Amino acid sequence: MGHGTNRVEDMASPNNGTAGETVVEIHSVCLPPKKTAFQKLKKRVGDVFFPDDPLQRFRNQTWRNRVILGLQSLFPIFTWGSQYDLKLLRSDVISGLTIASLAIPQGISYAKLANLPPIVGLYSSFVPPLIYAVLGSSRHLAVGPVSIASLVMGSMLSESVSPTQDSILYLKLAFTSTFFAGVFQASLGLLRLGFMIDFLSKATLIGFTAGAAVIVSLQQLKGLLGIVHFTGKMQIVPVMSSVFNHRSEWSWETIVMGIGFLSILLTTRHISMRKPKLFWISAASPLASVIISTLLVYLIRSKTHAISFIGHLPKGLNPPSLNMLYFSGAHLALAIKTGIITGILSLTEGIAVGRTFASLKNYQVNGNKEMMAIGFMNMAGSCTSCYVTTGSFSRSAVNYNAGAKTAVSNIVMASAVLVTLLFLMPLFYYTPNVILAAIILTAVIGLIDYQAAYKLWKVDKFDFFTCLCSFFGVLFVSVPLGLAIAVAVSVIKILLHVTRPNTSEFGNIPGTQIYQSLGRYREASRIPGFLILAIESPIYFANSTYLQDRILRWAREEENRIKENNGTTLKCIILDMTAVSAIDTSGLEAVFELRRRLEKQSLQLVLVNPVGTVMEKLHKSKIIEALGLSGLYLTVGEAVADLSSTWKANGQP
Amino acid sequence: MGHGTNRVEDMASPNNGTAGETVVEIHSVCLPPKKTAFQKLKKRVGDVFFPDDPLQRFRNQTWRNRVILGLQSLFPIFTWGSQYDLKLLRSDVISGLTIASLAIPQGISYAKLANLPPIVGLYSSFVPPLIYAVLGSSRHLAVGPVSIASLVMGSMLSESVSPTQDSILYLKLAFTSTFFAGVFQASLGLLRLGFMIDFLSKATLIGFTAGAAVIVSLQQLKGLLGIVHFTGKMQIVPVMSSVFNHRSEWSWETIVMGIGFLSILLTTRHISMRKPKLFWISAASPLASVIISTLLVYLIRSKTHAISFIGHLPKGLNPPSLNMLYFSGAHLALAIKTGIITGILSLTEGIAVGRTFASLKNYQVNGNKEMMAIGFMNMAGSCTSCYVTTGSFSRSAVNYNAGAKTAVSNIVMASAVLVTLLFLMPLFYYTPNVILAAIILTAVIGLIDYQAAYKLWKVDKFDFFTCLCSFFGVLFVSVPLGLAIAVAVSVIKILLHVTRPNTSEFGNIPGTQIYQSLGRYREASRIPGFLILAIESPIYFANSTYLQDRILRWAREEENRIKENNGTTLKCIILDMTAVSAIDTSGLEAVFELRRRLEKQSLQLVLVNPVGTVMEKLHKSKIIEALGLSGLYLTVGEAVADLSSTWKANGQP
Repeated sequence: MGHGTNRVEDMASPNNGTAGETVVEIHSVCLPPKKTAFQKLKKRVGDVFFPDDPLQRFRNQTWRNRVILGLQSLFPIFTWGSQYDLKLLRSDVISGLTIASLAIPQGISYAKLANLPPIVGLYSSFVPPLIYAVLGSSRHLAVGPVSIASLVMGSMLSESVSPTQDSILYLKLAFTSTFFAGVFQASLGLLRLGFMIDFLSKATLIGFTAGAAVIVSLQQLKGLLGIVHFTGKMQIVPVMSSVFNHRSEWSWETIVMGIGFLSILLTTRHISMRKPKLFWISAASPLASVIISTLLVYLIRSKTHAISFIGHLPKGLNPPSLNMLYFSGAHLALAIKTGIITGILSLTEGIAVGRTFASLKNYQVNGNKEMMAIGFMNMAGSCTSCYVTTGSFSRSAVNYNAGAKTAVSNIVMASAVLVTLLFLMPLFYYTPNVILAAIILTAVIGLIDYQAAYKLWKVDKFDFFTCLCSFFGVLFVSVPLGLAIAVAVSVIKILLHVTRPNTSEFGNIPGTQIYQSLGRYREASRIPGFLILAIESPIYFANSTYLQDRILRWAREEENRIKENNGTTLKCIILDMTAVSAIDTSGLEAVFELRRRLEKQSLQLVLVNPVGTVMEKLHKSKIIEALGLSGLYLTVGEAVADLSSTWKANGQP
Repeated sequence: MGHGTNRVEDMASPNNGTAGETVVEIHSVCLPPKKTAFQKLKKRVGDVFFPDDPLQRFRNQTWRNRVILGLQSLFPIFTWGSQYDLKLLRSDVISGLTIASLAIPQGISYAKLANLPPIVGLYSSFVPPLIYAVLGSSRHLAVGPVSIASLVMGSMLSESVSPTQDSILYLKLAFTSTFFAGVFQASLGLLRLGFMIDFLSKATLIGFTAGAAVIVSLQQLKGLLGIVHFTGKMQIVPVMSSVFNHRSEWSWETIVMGIGFLSILLTTRHISMRKPKLFWISAASPLASVIISTLLVYLIRSKTHAISFIGHLPKGLNPPSLNMLYFSGAHLALAIKTGIITGILSLTEGIAVGRTFASLKNYQVNGNKEMMAIGFMNMAGSCTSCYVTTGSFSRSAVNYNAGAKTAVSNIVMASAVLVTLLFLMPLFYYTPNVILAAIILTAVIGLIDYQAAYKLWKVDKFDFFTCLCSFFGVLFVSVPLGLAIAVAVSVIKILLHVTRPNTSEFGNIPGTQIYQSLGRYREASRIPGFLILAIESPIYFANSTYLQDRILRWAREEENRIKENNGTTLKCIILDMTAVSAIDTSGLEAVFELRRRLEKQSLQLVLVNPVGTVMEKLHKSKIIEALGLSGLYLTVGEAVADLSSTWKANGQP
């Protein structure tokens, strides 16, 4: 506290005055406790990277306990494993089998969405859930392929490599992208950079998901209409023109079958949404549809060839695919880019889903740990013929409703997939492609959350605009660019808010020491001789010039107002700095320059209640000295009272 | 105000209590006056694009006055032109001639820095100052080529086109870049996007300028050592290796002459800096050095050929160059990019210089208008064989010290250049290149502002880091990339501040209604049963998850502390929202979720003093209703008093 004496006169006195006329105690503004640059850096790094204080649990523990806690935090299975009993197992088996009935048809469908062989979808529903069960901290996450990440991988890779002509290279790229997605996810967790996914705001995601859902739905027109020659592009315009250019290929048998099963699936979905207790109706209907439609095609196989079906699928477990990873060559950059984008999207979905259900059951999901779990799961997946996986919202909801208690439901689901892979693959020979399209359509239609978009419109127009940007960006430009545009818009919003912060004029609420915005509180009134301004933003290089000009304009306008009303001359400008949460060197210079300019107009500048870090910088840059003893107060009320009494003592009006 | 009744009981009562025990009036929190979305958008657009309220002067004026005011604001010359008299002219002639003596040698030198023919530097000191005199609003700006923009243009263009082998194409590109620089500058002004240059913070500029100065100085080693074969690269490593690889080309005559004149120039500069009244010593020394060295070379021209000189320069005025502008072809993208970067750099320099001297003489320089003036000046320049120009700091300082009163000093300077172009060009035939190198070196050495960098280090470590980034980026990577890195670092700082905002615990200062940070004010003390937290940032998607987790952690830690000390149970968490200057839908959801979670732990959440826009959104999203009547207060003191008395009434401890 090198800048002034303590101006507190009588701390114990209960007589704090009313409104600027009687004697008011004046409290001095404190500097925060002194810290070295290193201590501050340490605190800042701690705030940025370790906001959850991960080592807190290890303090004051014996070494043995620390090892146990360490194991538990690396492998959450140790936390709940020891208390696992038959009752929990029963719930988990039921929910595991329920999600398996959903996961098998969805796995096959989503793999087709990524232009991968259907079997890869099943492989991806076997290994990753097992790994997540050991590493993951969510109890309700149902792991496997998801629609958005599948779509994005499919669209990004097939722009450069044809999945039909170069199928081996395409597969290699898919596994390599999955590997890089895993590496990226795990490193975000390890480096504790999890906050990067926060930059995909809810508004962005609503628009992005809806756009992606529309694109996925359009892709399903191929299967639903039975079109053979379909465009490889994803955007709405080429897809629709492809659909209408190939009208001759439309097959009425396929269309009838598609519409039939689609109505069944949508109806069951509608029922389950109305009555969450009947979740099993929508959970069972995809598998039931697959079985019925397969039987149907088998029975009419000699009558018509218009309905295309999956055909031969290899039996057996995931083959190793480490040798298919691809670390050099022309397409490496594409694989890395695809990996990062699918990685960040699947991470966002997985974490959001995990958080949602954790919040419903009131337990914590640790973001950074989840990232590592999902990352390792994908790295392991890429070596065992799996493509990118994460927690699926629809299957996790079914899992939750079916009463899952722990990650064992994922193990049960994986076992069911195992049995399918080993013994049941030939049964899918006659499964029609149209049913896969119907299953995808039913799943993605729920992703178009128009109610949430409407709420954005009602509450925050700018968020709605962001949402629109990502929706139309995805629909008309491309999936990764649409996402980039929306993130850019969100960041620009933050920057714009900082660049043009709000300033408002304050007045006193009569009979109190409260100073509030004159625009909002009609009872608040100006104090003659003072202009009280509140600045609602940190003062940075990006706004220092603006704020300086804006405050001078306030002063000019106030003087004009006074002239018109023949009021008391303006003598002092009080800046309420409560909301100025930071200041940089440009900001300090602006304050200094402002003081100099106001002085030339015989106006005094007074700062009120700067926060700790700001106070420190004001002190270091000697602005406090320049302002003088009566240039800094703790509250607006004290500033008004002290300055008024000084003026009175000096015989000024 | 649909959310609650007015809880003000007795507005006139002077009895506002002391510290939470006696009866305190409770004021309700107001919504801001209702505005439609369009009104809000209009206000926001006004704040962003028209913060200076440019039409204010036109209000309540007759049409005749409006025309005059309009003309005056388009052509500031009309503002001061009518009051111009002989006394002002005398000052302007003296200062104009002084800066001309500086502008002529600097113009020739800077053109060489941009790899352009020396005569282009003189052309650029003739037309642009005339145009600025009519359009510009600064009275002290001395317009012409400047070192940084010259360097950047030279380095960017010569990376793709060789200035020696393809000299015509190079010249075309230079004029085209100048044209685009002008277009970019004028449109920033017209579209009122002037705030974009604010993103080049002072810290960035200090580092960037110093880095560019080092690069410029290194380039001068060619001239100072008399090297003939010099690298075309700019970075420190290739330049130094080129210097030492061509040791055989070093010419001792050149070195002796260079060091001699360099010491003279540096000494005169030092004298003028010590005694600003002797500014004319440093102002006159470049021209004097040129004259003396030219004479010297002329006299010894038969003895040695080691000293290279300028050679033939064409006589006559600026030839038109409209036909040399280049609007198609392979290099158009390069020209646009160079134009934008040199445009933004020269704009930043010009506006900063204008503001500096305007502030010294206490007049206003309008940023957007200056941008248009500088932009039109460059557009006109590009059609009359000029390359990019702006207000030079060094020459403007001389102009100011020499007593310039209006932009007429620029006209006088242009006239002096005119005379030179028409009659004196042959005199420069024997001017040695080494003297141009010495002039540039002397000019740019002053750009390395190590004192400012040291001040950054002392006051704000992060700003110092930004400064270092741009310095080393320019030095080792490239000029535009170095700049981009520094801007990115500055923006990331803003985002980081938003992503990980500060929260602090507040306590009551005994005997008052003041609540302040417990960490800063040792006299502040906790109120039993309450945890009072201040959030120092807007609540956005980028920080909503973090803040939610951080507040829950505060609650957890507070409960642990209470358990250790056997204190009163925690019952209520008060969030002081004064510094929360904005909220978006993610933030609203975080508040809602926080309330839900705290409720499960039987903790009440109370918000205090949300600002207008935040209050509005809280209201629209129905959070106010969810919080209930005792969930929102105007001050922390009122919240504490009201809740305590309610608890007491309910018989709770």
